[in-house]
Amino acid sequence: MTPSLQSLNLARQTLDGQAVLTPLLESPALNEKIGFRLFVKAEMLQKTGSFKFRGAFNAISQLNDEQKSKGVFAYSSGNHAQGIALAAKLLGTHATILMPEDSPTIKKENTRGYGAEVLTYDRYTQSREEIGLQISKEKELTLIKPYDNPDVISGQGTVGLEIVDQLSEQNLKADVITVPCGGGGLTSGISIAIKALSSGTCVYAAEPEGFDDTKRSLESGSRLSNDGNHKSICDAIVTPMPGEVTFPILRQNDVRGLTVSEEDVKEAMRVAFHYFKLVVEPGGAVALAALLSDKMAEKPTVAVAVTSGGNVDPDLYCSILSSK
Amino acid sequence: MTPSLQSLNLARQTLDGQAVLTPLLESPALNEKIGFRLFVKAEMLQKTGSFKFRGAFNAISQLNDEQKSKGVFAYSSGNHAQGIALAAKLLGTHATILMPEDSPTIKKENTRGYGAEVLTYDRYTQSREEIGLQISKEKELTLIKPYDNPDVISGQGTVGLEIVDQLSEQNLKADVITVPCGGGGLTSGISIAIKALSSGTCVYAAEPEGFDDTKRSLESGSRLSNDGNHKSICDAIVTPMPGEVTFPILRQNDVRGLTVSEEDVKEAMRVAFHYFKLVVEPGGAVALAALLSDKMAEKPTVAVAVTSGGNVDPDLYCSILSSK
Repeated sequence: MTPSLQSLNLARQTLDGQAVLTPLLESPALNEKIGFRLFVKAEMLQKTGSFKFRGAFNAISQLNDEQKSKGVFAYSSGNHAQGIALAAKLLGTHATILMPEDSPTIKKENTRGYGAEVLTYDRYTQSREEIGLQISKEKELTLIKPYDNPDVISGQGTVGLEIVDQLSEQNLKADVITVPCGGGGLTSGISIAIKALSSGTCVYAAEPEGFDDTKRSLESGSRLSNDGNHKSICDAIVTPMPGEVTFPILRQNDVRGLTVSEEDVKEAMRVAFHYFKLVVEPGGAVALAALLSDKMAEKPTVAVAVTSGGNVDPDLYCSILSSK
Repeated sequence: MTPSLQSLNLARQTLDGQAVLTPLLESPALNEKIGFRLFVKAEMLQKTGSFKFRGAFNAISQLNDEQKSKGVFAYSSGNHAQGIALAAKLLGTHATILMPEDSPTIKKENTRGYGAEVLTYDRYTQSREEIGLQISKEKELTLIKPYDNPDVISGQGTVGLEIVDQLSEQNLKADVITVPCGGGGLTSGISIAIKALSSGTCVYAAEPEGFDDTKRSLESGSRLSNDGNHKSICDAIVTPMPGEVTFPILRQNDVRGLTVSEEDVKEAMRVAFHYFKLVVEPGGAVALAALLSDKMAEKPTVAVAVTSGGNVDPDLYCSILSSK
């Protein structure tokens, strides 16, 4: 089903009682320091530690019995993997997942922990799309792409529905919502909700330096890829280019791009620790980093940063916490 | 007002729109590992990073204009201090706070950050009660004790009301609720809610070794103190003995005691990081530690651990995360 406000509302029904309605949190002390109300949509508190469970569960819910009996397949740097693994288990099917060799140990272990079969590849030399297509064909598995899948996008978009509701309970509307952006599943889903329900709110796709394909693509009007010469601590969102399905949605909903440095990301992780008591992984912190590092032309009044995941190895986490 | 179900419900109204309705979270992966459903009531997500904001706001709300114009006074290892400081600010009064010299830097800084005046004392040689009484008399400040105050207890008890509601939304009832226990404000407040609304649910006061005054007092039937020869990483809950107001409430509501080791506490902090993406301070992790370290005679089916705060210095936090 083409992603729309209607498909998002249906996804919300599907996820009711399954996904966590994650809190929208603010810190009076931080607000005072930065001079505006900053809310954090805490998706690391979602099942499997990231928003990806939403799209995964919604997508697998749409499969018929024959598809479910054969099983599902996914490729993922780790968060989609865990989302698919748990959703598959809850919905009575089996998951096979292709993950980069160098994805965080915690992500590989957790994915196996949910009962999925994990295969690995080298993200710098091999194409996961090609390997994925081959394996899923051979084994007759249903491939569930991490972002270029309408049901995944609708599932992720429920984050946007919740943000609008949670703000309106406090008689508030955001002028800015920033979203960590890899392939664009979360950002495009949220942009549908915001365009329909919160006019005047601008959605920004936040990306790390060297992986600003979405920002450049939105500025140029067509999908551009990254040069592939960069590495990033933001493993969750280092995708090669905007999605085929997601990109037109971003454009249609007037999403803009913002780029943050690795130091901005680390500082955002420290802020999340100190002020929110939340563990955020690097890729999940880019949107918070964008708001904290004053990347917008004007200072917002009410802003929301989606903190999209918290699956980070303790060694990396502590090296970042201690690095200032 | 004597703490009762009625006073808790009034406190809830007072806190509506002021305190965060903190989420009750579970981890399917952890549940599978331990063999029962374990929910965490995430009070580190409360304003000021601990449940203490609830009692502080409720207590200061009861003051008359003259009292508010003169200001409030509190002694605290740090979490009550922050709660009082922010509540005082929100309610238009001024707070003076007496804190131990060795309380975590983050707690002292945050308390000052909310606009309170901070005085310090040596917790191992001086009595905060005596100093507190003297200062509050001299300056005509209203002393708000951290636990032996009925309005504080009623405020903390709202945690119990929320737990009952959040479980019943899922058609669940806990057989066990464990609560970090220092002076007993949170535990006694929660025990009132549970006794009234959730028959068959047992409330446990969790304490660190060397500070098991509540457990021993409950077993003996009268208030016993700790020998004072121990130190603990659980700074938030190392009180000398159960409160004068809180202890009879604990007894009346059949609360039992559980003791955990420092290693149990550290492991609980690591579990909160890995499975819940939550930052828990040592004293806030004792109740989770009690559930994870199998301290009860029978394995529960549905259990709730209150994780009461997250104000921990990054150095200590990382030394604990890395210590396994």
